[in-house]
Amino acid sequence: MNLQQLNAEYAAAIDDDRLEEWPGFFEDECLYKITSAENLSDGNEAGIVYADSRAMLADRVLALRRANIYERQTYRHIIGTPRLLTADIAETPFLVVRTMRDGRMDLFAAGRYRDRLHRTNGTLRFKERVVICDSSHFDTLVAIPL
Amino acid sequence: MNLQQLNAEYAAAIDDDRLEEWPGFFEDECLYKITSAENLSDGNEAGIVYADSRAMLADRVLALRRANIYERQTYRHIIGTPRLLTADIAETPFLVVRTMRDGRMDLFAAGRYRDRLHRTNGTLRFKERVVICDSSHFDTLVAIPL
Amino acid sequence: MNLQQLNAEYAAAIDDDRLEEWPGFFEDECLYKITSAENLSDGNEAGIVYADSRAMLADRVLALRRANIYERQTYRHIIGTPRLLTADIAETPFLVVRTMRDGRMDLFAAGRYRDRLHRTNGTLRFKERVVICDSSHFDTLVAIPL
Repeated sequence: MNLQQLNAEYAAAIDDDRLEEWPGFFEDECLYKITSAENLSDGNEAGIVYADSRAMLADRVLALRRANIYERQTYRHIIGTPRLLTADIAETPFLVVRTMRDGRMDLFAAGRYRDRLHRTNGTLRFKERVVICDSSHFDTLVAIPL
Repeated sequence: MNLQQLNAEYAAAIDDDRLEEWPGFFEDECLYKITSAENLSDGNEAGIVYADSRAMLADRVLALRRANIYERQTYRHIIGTPRLLTADIAETPFLVVRTMRDGRMDLFAAGRYRDRLHRTNGTLRFKERVVICDSSHFDTLVAIPL
Repeated sequence: MNLQQLNAEYAAAIDDDRLEEWPGFFEDECLYKITSAENLSDGNEAGIVYADSRAMLADRVLALRRANIYERQTYRHIIGTPRLLTADIAETPFLVVRTMRDGRMDLFAAGRYRDRLHRTNGTLRFKERVVICDSSHFDTLVAIPL
């Protein structure tokens, strides 16, 4: 499996509402962060969403299931071609379209993934996935894995 | 030719308004269906659009040409990376953007293809293509091949 | 490097605001043109934007930097799978999403690239890139490399 296929599996797990599989795309010790290009260029390292272990990602999914926000809408990731910057660092553009229950669709998020990859026993996973959104406005975005 | 290339040719035939080539992407005996994720999860197998032969798809193109609806707008398919679920079954995310004559653009459809593929004499074709839209609202969608 | 990777680098250079790298994706003598499907079918060869050398593309970047329009918004290219029409001519669908400073996102452009490729000393570049937009309305589009 290469990064393009990993991204396809990652996107499908989220978009098919198999959220419980989402933490499995990461290493045990990992970094997952949602931020914006503006935050990054301002030197703001905090991120809107931050997790540094697979267990924290799993907690996040539990919280989402309890809040039950996720099911009211559908997301569709369209992920572009990865660019390998080094042997294990890649950047990949993405777009997420949201469909509401009443059929309205909107552009939910666009940006790029900055990933650090790690292959363990033949399985490719994210050591880091920093989701760098083009927008710095994150009203509802916080709830959703991107 | 692999599925990614087949999807690129399929999308271009529709978006370039070469609709007469569209049935050629399917086997003689085939299934083409447009439905929604909600319909599927409700066990509703009917589909909004249904065809079970290449001849039926060709009839559909003729009807579209007669109705002349198609030419007033332009469609652009952006198709993601296929995921092979078995040797001949794949799922692939898609997004269709519509451009009206006056320049307005909107998100027309998003969802995933669930395909059963068949290779005959070296040519890859769809034995089944089920278009699973994220939205269950199909006002004008019925007319257009997705 | 193949066309899919070249497109990924091309898009990232624009979307990451590394515009000065953009002319480097073209041959010294080249054709870059933004037009619409309607213009082409009307036999109108002019194009909204036209450049026939890398130097002209570099001038264009300088003008954009002076006008300083570019920085107020962010663009994100999502580029599909290339279709090789001949050994050196390809067509590839694209979508560009724009994010405004206040977080609003819209569909900025959709269409297809028609490229003539050239490989010099192992480096793949565009001899021609004709950007064929689905829309014929180009209000603000003129300023931006697509």
